[in-house]
Amino acid sequence: MSSAGPDARADYRDVVSPAEAGRLVRAALARSAGPARPSEAVPLASAAGRVLAAAVVAAEDVPGFKRSTVDGYAVRAPDTFGAGEGAPVLLTVVGRVAMGRAADLRLGPGQTAAVPTGGMLPEPADAVVMVEHTVPAGEDLVEVLRPVAPGENVVRPGEDVARGTEVLPAGRRLGPADLGVLAALGVTEVACHPRPKVAVIPTGDEIVPAGTSRLAPGQVRDITSAAVAAHVTGDGGEPTVFDVVPDNPELLERTLEAAVDRFDLVLALGGSSVGARDNTAAAIDKLGPPGVLFHGLALKPGKPTIFGLAGGRGVPVFGLPGHPVSALVVYRLLVRPALRRLGGELAPGWRTAAEEQGTALEAFLPARLTTAVSSDQGRDEYLCVRLVWSDGRLWAEPVHGKSGLITMLARADGLVRIPAGRRGLDAGENVEVVLL
Amino acid sequence: MSSAGPDARADYRDVVSPAEAGRLVRAALARSAGPARPSEAVPLASAAGRVLAAAVVAAEDVPGFKRSTVDGYAVRAPDTFGAGEGAPVLLTVVGRVAMGRAADLRLGPGQTAAVPTGGMLPEPADAVVMVEHTVPAGEDLVEVLRPVAPGENVVRPGEDVARGTEVLPAGRRLGPADLGVLAALGVTEVACHPRPKVAVIPTGDEIVPAGTSRLAPGQVRDITSAAVAAHVTGDGGEPTVFDVVPDNPELLERTLEAAVDRFDLVLALGGSSVGARDNTAAAIDKLGPPGVLFHGLALKPGKPTIFGLAGGRGVPVFGLPGHPVSALVVYRLLVRPALRRLGGELAPGWRTAAEEQGTALEAFLPARLTTAVSSDQGRDEYLCVRLVWSDGRLWAEPVHGKSGLITMLARADGLVRIPAGRRGLDAGENVEVVLL
Repeated sequence: MSSAGPDARADYRDVVSPAEAGRLVRAALARSAGPARPSEAVPLASAAGRVLAAAVVAAEDVPGFKRSTVDGYAVRAPDTFGAGEGAPVLLTVVGRVAMGRAADLRLGPGQTAAVPTGGMLPEPADAVVMVEHTVPAGEDLVEVLRPVAPGENVVRPGEDVARGTEVLPAGRRLGPADLGVLAALGVTEVACHPRPKVAVIPTGDEIVPAGTSRLAPGQVRDITSAAVAAHVTGDGGEPTVFDVVPDNPELLERTLEAAVDRFDLVLALGGSSVGARDNTAAAIDKLGPPGVLFHGLALKPGKPTIFGLAGGRGVPVFGLPGHPVSALVVYRLLVRPALRRLGGELAPGWRTAAEEQGTALEAFLPARLTTAVSSDQGRDEYLCVRLVWSDGRLWAEPVHGKSGLITMLARADGLVRIPAGRRGLDAGENVEVVLL
Repeated sequence: MSSAGPDARADYRDVVSPAEAGRLVRAALARSAGPARPSEAVPLASAAGRVLAAAVVAAEDVPGFKRSTVDGYAVRAPDTFGAGEGAPVLLTVVGRVAMGRAADLRLGPGQTAAVPTGGMLPEPADAVVMVEHTVPAGEDLVEVLRPVAPGENVVRPGEDVARGTEVLPAGRRLGPADLGVLAALGVTEVACHPRPKVAVIPTGDEIVPAGTSRLAPGQVRDITSAAVAAHVTGDGGEPTVFDVVPDNPELLERTLEAAVDRFDLVLALGGSSVGARDNTAAAIDKLGPPGVLFHGLALKPGKPTIFGLAGGRGVPVFGLPGHPVSALVVYRLLVRPALRRLGGELAPGWRTAAEEQGTALEAFLPARLTTAVSSDQGRDEYLCVRLVWSDGRLWAEPVHGKSGLITMLARADGLVRIPAGRRGLDAGENVEVVLL
């Protein structure tokens, strides 16, 4: 541990704004060699959340046949021209198409066949009259009350997806709807990027493993590793939680050196002391170049954040703040996008375009603040809030407390950003709550 | 399959609004016997996303010792009274507390000890002077420039969490921060509700399994099961996808009968035909009472939705629309909250209070609509949109198309709700986009 004398309170070396930090991280990732592991073949049933290593191209037309979009009668459109309520066209019903079967009949002039929604049109039918626009007229006859244009109520072969079309791009993180798309195309297995391996390294003389049943005086259990590891898994990474590293510069350097050799991303979790933070920065620098790229974030909470590239492959290393709430705020803001990029995800265009202009797009719930809060003008601040429904609307109640380690984690439902330049927020003010 | 004649177009029996449907589902779940399986002991590392079966109560005080929140000097507060820049108080430094260790010294009057952030205070110190407010004054002496009040810069034992406090309530779905809370308390294993078992039953004469490599004319692969199963997993359920059931009333009834015996929730996925839908409703009724509780939703897309309770235990059964986009809209709106409730989750108070007043709270991104869209006034409508970043803001572009099965699934980024009563939305109008 560091001494508590004034000399120990090292200044943060290169304090940057969160937007600038985001740019530095993105630029560093573009420069870093990154993982060179081959893609994996993943069966569809376990592909949710995985990232496509190659675009998926349709190997066949969808649909593969002329398909009705309504319950009705398949017709040659010209046969219905001129039909009206007062002047119905009489057609001969020569059959009925069974659902899921080939339409094993042919229509001659003036002939029609009943067809269900989703059913195949017999040749040479090119349109379907909705059943609502027909009247049965004795055995095997039907009156058509409205004309249909060619193609009406029909999906042509390949109209949904034509063979050869790129349906899902490389870099797409597969959601439930994407699995439906793959199923529709008969794809049973997809090439996916390997999950990034993430080292989660708790540090600090006072930190003992979470599983420690009885604490000695002065000890604190490792809170942050469990929370960060759960986030890493949720964001598509494979976390490995290391043994706690004491505040010993050589030991930390050796641990980081081994980690950047075997992992794609390294997260060093700070203890409470200033010394631990300095050790992390020094170790990253020794393992460079380039070493530390920024040291200190103009963000509250989250100031004691470090980022750099280390090891021969230029593996990204974050030093996260010791306070668990701070660590989780910085995780969301900087680590999550970095991890997703390391996993091969190419964010959709709207998201990257917004990011490049410094706008983070996060879905939020609008609420009103219950009480005024003050804030530093000089930096962005994130306020932990608890949500309350009252008087028919949503309220955000600030969760404070110096003692906040656990209470804040357990009570906060979301975060409200107070931009740099504002002195605080007013009671009753409309705020945007990003859910935790 | 049903005939395509007018008689086959059965009216929806009991069309309800989405809000009324939500109330009916919630009331039915409260009435249903539900799963009576015992809770499971889940290790912390795999508890993310699981639901607590019992409240977690702190077994110890946190912190367990008087803890400094700053780097500085532990003092008996009265020793600093009267200190000022011009009149510093001189204290004798009798030691230094090591991080993570017991403070193995005692302060006499006029004595102090250096203590790091997070370090333990020696007895009988009751406050810490920040290092910034001190000046070293030769060996073993320090000048204090400001007084501190008792308790200043100190977290008392139990101040964060007192022993016996309920820290996390039963019914809480554990997020990453909650795992941190459990780790802090030394909890290594928690009692969780079992995951609900969900039967996913594709139906329809035209539907063939997703794995089918070559389609015969008239056939369509099962798109919806893969998408729904992925959602079920994400919402904490254990999906089992059944073999496709053809449009045969007896077969469907037998399948549902077996499913309600072994599963906690049954999702019957409609084919394209009206007949399949009617079969589902008839089977649920036969397996009641109460059988079908509503049949038809005043919602676009999503009208052909059925809900009821079936089997001796009153297992909830949804009949979902055959169109995959419709099925996914209804899943989000009705199935997801039902599944989460079946998993034992008690939504936070703000969410349930809002739900009871008919307000669904979903986080959204604000965007502008690129083009005007029209809609039915009589029912809620959900518009699939693609997001585009342009001119420094987010735009929502409607994704249309009768052919929409796959294209819509692959292209839509989110949904925009057009409330019943509106004739449509204007070009340039501000909309709330819920991400898919």
